[in-house]
Amino acid sequence: MVLLSGGLDSVTALAIAQQQYECYALSFRYGQRHTAELVASERIAQSAQVKKHHIVDLNLSLFENSALTNHQLNIPTDSSSEIPITYVPARNTIFLSIAMGWAEVLEASSIFIGVNALDYSGYPDCRPEFVETFQSMCHLATKAGIEGNAVRIQAPLIHMTKAQIIKQGMRLGVNYADTVSCYQATQQGLACGQCDSCKLRAQGFVDAGLKDPTHYQ
Amino acid sequence: MVLLSGGLDSVTALAIAQQQYECYALSFRYGQRHTAELVASERIAQSAQVKKHHIVDLNLSLFENSALTNHQLNIPTDSSSEIPITYVPARNTIFLSIAMGWAEVLEASSIFIGVNALDYSGYPDCRPEFVETFQSMCHLATKAGIEGNAVRIQAPLIHMTKAQIIKQGMRLGVNYADTVSCYQATQQGLACGQCDSCKLRAQGFVDAGLKDPTHYQ
Repeated sequence: MVLLSGGLDSVTALAIAQQQYECYALSFRYGQRHTAELVASERIAQSAQVKKHHIVDLNLSLFENSALTNHQLNIPTDSSSEIPITYVPARNTIFLSIAMGWAEVLEASSIFIGVNALDYSGYPDCRPEFVETFQSMCHLATKAGIEGNAVRIQAPLIHMTKAQIIKQGMRLGVNYADTVSCYQATQQGLACGQCDSCKLRAQGFVDAGLKDPTHYQ
Repeated sequence: MVLLSGGLDSVTALAIAQQQYECYALSFRYGQRHTAELVASERIAQSAQVKKHHIVDLNLSLFENSALTNHQLNIPTDSSSEIPITYVPARNTIFLSIAMGWAEVLEASSIFIGVNALDYSGYPDCRPEFVETFQSMCHLATKAGIEGNAVRIQAPLIHMTKAQIIKQGMRLGVNYADTVSCYQATQQGLACGQCDSCKLRAQGFVDAGLKDPTHYQ
């Protein structure tokens, strides 16, 4: 099972998972302003021929202090070393928990998540320690876990830079023109080029020495 | 913050929490067949005068092999020592994860959950080990956690029998007639008296030597 946001990282994680497994994909409509990523996730799930793609509706608008779910807040365009306002509390824990439940139903052996600690060090739930502690919990939280068949949490990008991720994805045939990373993409999936996520992505292509296929506004 | 299903246990957990804290309550519309418990949760949240009660919509119908979310499966009436078909994969992990996120937004210090290991030993996510491992994760999963202010997971009923829970609740003034525990209660909240949950509850009142105020069909 692959957590598929429709952005650059998760799509690369899917391509890596597909080298080894038949994959299911799971996405979330959680009140994010950038719903174009969901359209992208559907397009990608289809072209990657995943076994099933499920979008879970989950209204996190009660988490009103994140710029991703509170559409009144502005998306910042200057990076800082602090935890950014685009942080959505507990997001990866919530997504992994739901994936853990669905994985148990399907008897899936692994959950792939495209977190990377180098570029997103500001997000607590993108760090290796977080992935490890969630893995520990899997052993106790489910029927499969206590029977010794806990799902394995795989984060193949966790120690990779954006440039490394892009190069890896390119080798596996990912078409990054299909992906949407922008926090405030238009309905048509056009990127702003200004937000943190756009800047990290653009710099990734520069560092990788590859042409940026992103559709900008 | 109190996870409030509207059943006997969570309402008792709320009463215990309210001795010490001003409380928020969180419930889930997750595709359960017993929606009467949500009506009960609203009634209880109102009479307990919680600061805010939020019901999160979360469609877990993709977890199709639980009798609580797949309305085609029958609710069993004979208990067994195995994990029952009413087990919903990862349910408490999912609920606690969302509570963890909302708690971070509100800067709540504790999350109360009414799990008890004695009566629900068949559910992996009702055991003390599960609560402890989730607590460990809280230290790494959120901004509050890495800043040293992880939310505290409190499970005050975890080592109590149903009879002990009922006696404790009665001392705190809980009106159990308001609660709905039945897995297949009618829309009006009338209990079947036959399912595992009904039997455990009824036996609890017998063991406590107290009159059962449950409204049966």
